[in-house]
Amino acid sequence: MIRIEVDLAARSYPIFIGSGLLRDSALLGRAIKSRQVMLVTNELVDPLYAHFVEEALQDRQLRKVSLADGESRKTIESYYQILTALLEAKFERGCTVVALGGGVVGDVAGFAAASYQRGVSFVQLPTTLLAQVDSSVGGKTAVNHPLGKNMIGAFHQPSAVIADLETLNTLPPREFTAGLAEIIKYGLIRDRDFFDWMETHLDQLLARDTATLSLAVRRSCENKAAVVGADEQESGERALLNFGHTFGHAIEHAQGYGNWLHGEAVGAGMCMAARLSTRMGNIAPTSRDRIINLVARAGLSTEAPESSSRAQLLEAMSIDKKNKDGHIRLILLDAIGHASIRDDYDEEALLEVLGPSATFQAA
Amino acid sequence: MIRIEVDLAARSYPIFIGSGLLRDSALLGRAIKSRQVMLVTNELVDPLYAHFVEEALQDRQLRKVSLADGESRKTIESYYQILTALLEAKFERGCTVVALGGGVVGDVAGFAAASYQRGVSFVQLPTTLLAQVDSSVGGKTAVNHPLGKNMIGAFHQPSAVIADLETLNTLPPREFTAGLAEIIKYGLIRDRDFFDWMETHLDQLLARDTATLSLAVRRSCENKAAVVGADEQESGERALLNFGHTFGHAIEHAQGYGNWLHGEAVGAGMCMAARLSTRMGNIAPTSRDRIINLVARAGLSTEAPESSSRAQLLEAMSIDKKNKDGHIRLILLDAIGHASIRDDYDEEALLEVLGPSATFQAA
Repeated sequence: MIRIEVDLAARSYPIFIGSGLLRDSALLGRAIKSRQVMLVTNELVDPLYAHFVEEALQDRQLRKVSLADGESRKTIESYYQILTALLEAKFERGCTVVALGGGVVGDVAGFAAASYQRGVSFVQLPTTLLAQVDSSVGGKTAVNHPLGKNMIGAFHQPSAVIADLETLNTLPPREFTAGLAEIIKYGLIRDRDFFDWMETHLDQLLARDTATLSLAVRRSCENKAAVVGADEQESGERALLNFGHTFGHAIEHAQGYGNWLHGEAVGAGMCMAARLSTRMGNIAPTSRDRIINLVARAGLSTEAPESSSRAQLLEAMSIDKKNKDGHIRLILLDAIGHASIRDDYDEEALLEVLGPSATFQAA
Repeated sequence: MIRIEVDLAARSYPIFIGSGLLRDSALLGRAIKSRQVMLVTNELVDPLYAHFVEEALQDRQLRKVSLADGESRKTIESYYQILTALLEAKFERGCTVVALGGGVVGDVAGFAAASYQRGVSFVQLPTTLLAQVDSSVGGKTAVNHPLGKNMIGAFHQPSAVIADLETLNTLPPREFTAGLAEIIKYGLIRDRDFFDWMETHLDQLLARDTATLSLAVRRSCENKAAVVGADEQESGERALLNFGHTFGHAIEHAQGYGNWLHGEAVGAGMCMAARLSTRMGNIAPTSRDRIINLVARAGLSTEAPESSSRAQLLEAMSIDKKNKDGHIRLILLDAIGHASIRDDYDEEALLEVLGPSATFQAA
């Protein structure tokens, strides 16, 4: 078992990574300290893994909310459903909300934990690759609004993250592939060696080799923990973790939440950001091609969907948490392994990377 | 103009108290720094005072949400209405939410500010006595859930509070009286001199004499600022501000939100807490009678409504943020001017102060 610390003074917490951690009742029992525990999961994960948590916490007062699956359920209604369950159970401020599932479960449950009685304890048990390498770490919680992704939420750190690599064995191929996008992202924005390693180890990763997976999850969490520890509330460096996400959120929004998985949209978004970085002369065409090639080898699309017009994507990008004074701000690459936040890009070049102009004219 | 500082390190902020402050465009302009401003008010306050804010900020991008009046609108729906307005206006993370109104407007607008894009700036312009002396200071934001009051919310400090005493001239008598309850509270829990002063100056206060009001608002804010500065997130002393509130919340809940004003319920709740304190031998009957007498002179009820049974009140008290291990915790008095959090009260005595036993048997 690997242990990584997220260093946030009084809000510091450990990330545990290993195979079979959900079977470790003692570990779960230590990480989840409350007498009252609200387990939040979804209908797909529930029958596979909830029993491990139920067994480990059989001496506690445990209740469960099982959400329907998918990004389309990352709504204020799901959030309210969890709050109602907490109140029906008369859970007190000393309770813990436990998220067992992927990014949607973690984000919704985390926002409920952040706002129930103005904040209760929260533990993340991520079961998807994307949640293990990215969304379960760092305390960002949110629900979507029909007008924008992740627009309602809170910074609320978990008190522990337990990533059981065994859960990745049951992950559908699309979900697994989507998680690879966030792993590639860490290499691109701040860890060139990790990007190089991905290029040489992608086949073992795709084969879900445990040792390779373990290294990828660990290195991703180390990168995430370092960024979050330096800039918890995204006043600076943390925004770089949004590389590919402004494009990606626009794709998700334009296609309707849940039709493209978040990681799939980020994969295409990173390719779009790489193209724009090259257009601006910041990275060489060969670097751009390495990026697009790795994303494609991972099984991800490297382009925005043709069914979303430039106009639709641009409109969706106009609502983004990084925007300032009405201007879209983007994370772009200066090199493989180095990113920065920019608003000095060329508008024409941005339009071009959004897709074929014919689609734009038709919109 | 009086200025009081709430000392919370990086989140410190000023409270300005004075007559005609809403007419002071320069003050409003300095306190509200953003280009994008969402003014949240209610249908009663809007026609009276919104124009001052609109005039002061005519060079900004200003939008307005006007809620229906009353505690029954302190809901997740009102909260969502503000978030939707923010998104429709494409307001960015640099925007400011401004609450112009009483406790309901401030609490709902504050929670929207706390969670829009995971937190934006917030300014309070309280127009009721209760909001000026209590709810606008300290960063507690919340909405009600049908199963419990203030159960969904966040700690989110404003960047400034501007209390214009002139707005109290238009306050309906019931609203004014309700605010007196919270002023009496500060004397009871931590400021004996202030309680003595209230006894001798209540008539001038009821006549809304400006100098007397100014002193009462100032002294209340000084007390509140001191408590919040020492214990922002209510891990200890701040719970004492809940004196009379556990009983009060139960009355509000049992009677249906909005039928008793919050301050009215707190007034009766303080008398109930005083009776229990005497029953436990902590304060003399003469002290209890002074408290009940002052609350009555203020025009507030000193008893729970007969239409709420002991059983109803007890059930409502079982959902309270202070409760621990299934036990109701209460703020009780050790003396006039000193309170403590207790769970060693006698259950029989608690039942008795909740109301006549006939009501209990009938339930």
